[in-house]
This record gives sequence, C-alpha cells and structure tokens, in this order.
Amino acid sequence: MRFCSACGREVERRIPPDDDRERFVCAHCDTVHYQNPKIVVGCLPVWEDRVLLCRRAIAPRAGFWTLPAGFMENSETTLDGARRETWEEARARTEGEELYTLFDLPHISQVYMFYRAQLSEAEYAAGPESTEVALFLEQDIPWEDLAFPVVSATLEHFFADRRAGNYPFRARTLRPEDWARLRR
Amino acid sequence: MRFCSACGREVERRIPPDDDRERFVCAHCDTVHYQNPKIVVGCLPVWEDRVLLCRRAIAPRAGFWTLPAGFMENSETTLDGARRETWEEARARTEGEELYTLFDLPHISQVYMFYRAQLSEAEYAAGPESTEVALFLEQDIPWEDLAFPVVSATLEHFFADRRAGNYPFRARTLRPEDWARLRR
Repeated sequence: MRFCSACGREVERRIPPDDDRERFVCAHCDTVHYQNPKIVVGCLPVWEDRVLLCRRAIAPRAGFWTLPAGFMENSETTLDGARRETWEEARARTEGEELYTLFDLPHISQVYMFYRAQLSEAEYAAGPESTEVALFLEQDIPWEDLAFPVVSATLEHFFADRRAGNYPFRARTLRPEDWARLRR
Repeated sequence: MRFCSACGREVERRIPPDDDRERFVCAHCDTVHYQNPKIVVGCLPVWEDRVLLCRRAIAPRAGFWTLPAGFMENSETTLDGARRETWEEARARTEGEELYTLFDLPHISQVYMFYRAQLSEAEYAAGPESTEVALFLEQDIPWEDLAFPVVSATLEHFFADRRAGNYPFRARTLRPEDWARLRR
C-alpha cells in the first residue's frame, strides 16, 4: 500500500492516536487503513468411502492435490463460500455440511475452515483452477503430493475420526514449525 | 475506495478477467483490490458461577453490555486476538480457552468467534473502550441491554449448556431476521 484509497495521496506508516500499532495512515485526510486476516473456506467432500481431491492448475503449488477451498467473499457465509469454491474448483455439489476443521495460520494472517460434506451425487469435473478431480480411498491418498499443510491435517483428522466413529470439531494453529509432524 | 493504493490513480468498478463479480480495479496499473470479510474475536470469561461483561464506552451501542471482543489483527491467532481484546476492554487475563461459538454475519461481512474461558483471577477493570466491567450471575444478566445479537446468542448457549453439563462448539448464521428469536 503506497497511496490512500480515499484521497489518492501518499500514505505513511505510523501509530494512530488511541492505537498501539503501526498502520498505513493518510497524512492528508487522516484515514487509517486497517489490514486484517483473511478467511479461506472449503469442503472435504465425501462419497461412500472416498474423498474428493483437486489437482491444482495454478500457483501456488500447481500440480499438487488439494481440497476445494478459496477466499471467502463479502456478503456470503462460510458455508456459502465453501460450497461456491467446491463448485468452482471441482464442479461438485455437497449436502449435510458440518464445520469440521479451523486452522489459525498467523505467519500468513489467514484463518482456514473446512466443512465435512457429503457429495450430493458422484458427479464432478475439473473447474478452471484444477487440471483433474478424483475420488480417493484412504490407501490411495497422495500424501507426498498434497498442496498445503491444512489439507494434510484435515485428511489426517478425517481418517482417524472415521475409524473412531465420530467427527469432533477441531481447531488448531499450524505454524511452519508444525509442518514436519504432518504425514507426507 | 476511490483511488488505487498501489499507484494513486482512480479505481473503477468492473469484473476482472477470469472473475465473476465486480471489484475495484485500477484502470492504470490493473491492480485488483479485493475486499473480504473480517473476523471479530472475543472471550466469554467465567469466574465461578458468573460471567464477565463490559459496558461499552464507544459507538456502536455505547452504554450497552458486551463480551470483550474486537477485530482480529494480522499475525495473531484467533486466541491471541481474543486474549488481547479481553485485556484491552476488561483488563482481565484468561486461561483454559476453548473455541465455543462462531457466527456468520453475511449482512455485514463479518465472522465472529468467542472463546469460552476461565478468568485467571477475579481481577478486572474498565479499559479505554469500557465504562464499567462486572461479573454477572445468570439471573442478573441485563438481557435487554446487551449490545449485539452475537452476545445474546453466546450467553443463551452458555447458560443452557451449563445446565446440560457440556459445551459443544456451536456454529450458526445470525441474520437480522433471526434477532427477534433471541432473548431480551
């Protein structure tokens, strides 16, 4: 950020009155430009004993497998966003969604949420951001070729919870130093 | 938003290539300025059989009672933010926090989260955004003078769950048409 989005003049970095941290502030019109974490929402779509993964067509992590997910948009709910992303990336419709995992990623100022969901029917296809979409049995999950730690962690929880027979909501922080403990 | 924060020229409202909705886009440097939902985090601090509420010193809803909460900052976790807000508004420290409620508020593009927490000691005081901070028994909760529907809903869940003896994580959407069903 270099310029004020309200008046077009240059911004500077300073601590506003009654605040305790540096913000981008316009020296001309005094507007404070706050920057806050973003929410990424997605689904873990299940069909019988298999889960749906998408192979990424785009950066970051092109060629690696992921669960359908993306930035939440204004005016939608987290579930609206998770369904929208599942349609955009996997051309799949879901039902019976339950919020299942929530990850704090403070090193990139993101909060990730996945809904566990049933595929409404066994129909899916690659959307514009995927090269391939497929259903995987647990033993066929490409653990070494998963795109993101949040995907590895969500799948690990899912298969463990499926064996245990219940799926508690799980919230955790995933910092880079935690990645080595994930399956791959 | 009127001006591009990257180059200072005027922005326009249009649908970028490969997108499906209008964004603020700079006609000069082509930067797309995404706007996304914000996260508000807070605590439901408990001491013995009482809960801690803050009376708001500032708009919106000055004079009404709330749970300590505020916008999550970059580089923190949801729990970091909930603890920080509890300190800023109620000068209180918590422990044993568990993520308890999550509210989608699509009409204002916010996601609200409250941690259920124990006060570390019975010490608290009004921070700069509060005029008063106090512990309330269930029968003394000022239901008609609560600041926000998310506060009413979180307290309703808490007292019902306390009677039931367990506190499941609860996620729900709270639109204006749902407010009439909340206690007041």
